[in-house]
Amino acid sequence: MAGKKLGRQTAALASPPSVVGYASVVGHKEGEGPLAATFDHISQDDTFGEKSWEKAESAMQKLALSIALNKAGIAPAALDYLLAGDLLNQCIGTGFAVRGQDVPFFGLYGACSTMAESLSLAALLLDGGFGSRIAAMTSSHFCSAERQYRAPLEYGGQRPPTAQWTVTGSGCVILSEDGPGPYVTHVTTGMIVDKGIKDASNMGAAMAPAAYSTIKAHFADTGRKPSDYDLILTGDLGQLGRDIVADWFRRDGTELKNLSDCGTLIYHLEGQDVHCGGSGCGCSAVVLAGLLLNGMAEDRWKRILFCGTGALLSPTSTQQGESIPSICHAVALDRGR
Amino acid sequence: MAGKKLGRQTAALASPPSVVGYASVVGHKEGEGPLAATFDHISQDDTFGEKSWEKAESAMQKLALSIALNKAGIAPAALDYLLAGDLLNQCIGTGFAVRGQDVPFFGLYGACSTMAESLSLAALLLDGGFGSRIAAMTSSHFCSAERQYRAPLEYGGQRPPTAQWTVTGSGCVILSEDGPGPYVTHVTTGMIVDKGIKDASNMGAAMAPAAYSTIKAHFADTGRKPSDYDLILTGDLGQLGRDIVADWFRRDGTELKNLSDCGTLIYHLEGQDVHCGGSGCGCSAVVLAGLLLNGMAEDRWKRILFCGTGALLSPTSTQQGESIPSICHAVALDRGR
Repeated sequence: MAGKKLGRQTAALASPPSVVGYASVVGHKEGEGPLAATFDHISQDDTFGEKSWEKAESAMQKLALSIALNKAGIAPAALDYLLAGDLLNQCIGTGFAVRGQDVPFFGLYGACSTMAESLSLAALLLDGGFGSRIAAMTSSHFCSAERQYRAPLEYGGQRPPTAQWTVTGSGCVILSEDGPGPYVTHVTTGMIVDKGIKDASNMGAAMAPAAYSTIKAHFADTGRKPSDYDLILTGDLGQLGRDIVADWFRRDGTELKNLSDCGTLIYHLEGQDVHCGGSGCGCSAVVLAGLLLNGMAEDRWKRILFCGTGALLSPTSTQQGESIPSICHAVALDRGR
Repeated sequence: MAGKKLGRQTAALASPPSVVGYASVVGHKEGEGPLAATFDHISQDDTFGEKSWEKAESAMQKLALSIALNKAGIAPAALDYLLAGDLLNQCIGTGFAVRGQDVPFFGLYGACSTMAESLSLAALLLDGGFGSRIAAMTSSHFCSAERQYRAPLEYGGQRPPTAQWTVTGSGCVILSEDGPGPYVTHVTTGMIVDKGIKDASNMGAAMAPAAYSTIKAHFADTGRKPSDYDLILTGDLGQLGRDIVADWFRRDGTELKNLSDCGTLIYHLEGQDVHCGGSGCGCSAVVLAGLLLNGMAEDRWKRILFCGTGALLSPTSTQQGESIPSICHAVALDRGR
């Protein structure tokens, strides 16, 4: 039995695939944050033994995939597909991590929404009958992101209060057609939303309207309400972006009491000098493949709406005066089918 | 009835989706090539009326989508998903083209294999039951590619004999669960292959082993043989890369008489100063959404294996001494189901 579309943006899975393995790999700073105990691997050395930050990102992905496969008790050869991407130009973090894995590969670009995007497509492909096990993966690295998007690290540029800190980390989740759960039951795919924010140091405000749009669509398509979820978690809106989403729902008459954001959870907002919080593909990926999936396994949460958020800009688009197109993909995770 | 995996890399579609609309938009030089009559729109102005080459790429994608929708006789609101990507850093050609379309969007990065990758995922999602109509799209632009990957145009650097010319063009294909065909019957997803080529001016040689690997896997998985296809068409290997693939099959005892390459078809190899031929996401996209689909409609070819090829490098990976990971995705198109 195949899945079906519910409304415009949501797919309801007929045979919800199960998480069977997951892993989070992070850098030093993330290991000093409040979620340290939830990560599988914390490196004291952000180069991960490599000669460049870009290669470090590939090393993180390879490690995350390897740990997730171990937890699932399978070899790479047991994966039908691997879906992954990252923030680097031409997604080289991913390309070089996947090289040598001998797994059919679909490369994705969803900016910081990539964990939710890869999980979405993995779930849809499995529910469609195309294989038994699929890995979804992404990463980001503070140092590779800074030099690519902003300025050389040595420059020491000051960051405005709305800025966020790119997470050094990689998360990997393996889905299977069968398993003990949690299960991916619904996939709400985002449309691009752009409300005209041009400040690349204020990504939270740029992405908040996309998160609002997708979460609203999820409720409209499924007939569910916010209280049907124990937790609604956006990817990397940070403090400001999260507050904007809560505010917009409040104007609609809905109090999103269970709304939080991976970017506000991963660091100590006071004390780790991260301003509005964490960001990057790795942010939502390691919070999902750590705090969230651990918490579901421990029955802390029964049902979560995981909403990856991405800003589809580049330094070139910003230099050319463009605003920031954003997107949010939501995935409903449920302990039961 | 859902689809199924055949062997390691191939998915066989249970209800092969049909092409119901397609469009090709190209620049001036492509309009002087041998395929001019097959394109829907040839612009005499490679800026497409925009202020930057990057914005021109978005304009091409918007136009290709619009023409394809017109041919399919549907509005954007009738699309369940749009799958697209391009070569630009952070895929901004696509992000800005999709902004405002109000279609659920999955961003892809498959380098020049993106037309085959997007077509693959579109077909898999439809066969899985997730909607009725999905658009697959990509683009490339000679000028944006040159300045991003190589040198400013004004520099006038000399190109080696193995170099290829990035196609200025965008192709869009709309698949539907029902229609008159041609149908996507099989999707063979590539694994990353890297045989150590480090010369970014010799992408044909870098990508040829990936094409060989995927085409071989397609035959092994499906039990088909080369002569089961009227045409086996790689994306942008150019003359040298195409010859390498033919040579490798010859060593296996197989003469691929029906092998050709979009990069060798799109320009006059003698006379248009393109060295080994065309390249870029747009290359295979506009040949598919022009010559190939026109030819199938006219019954010139009944069955085609369309093999998008991509080099997953970046200028940074090349500067860091890395070789070029490559991938090839193959899609079987058939006039009958």
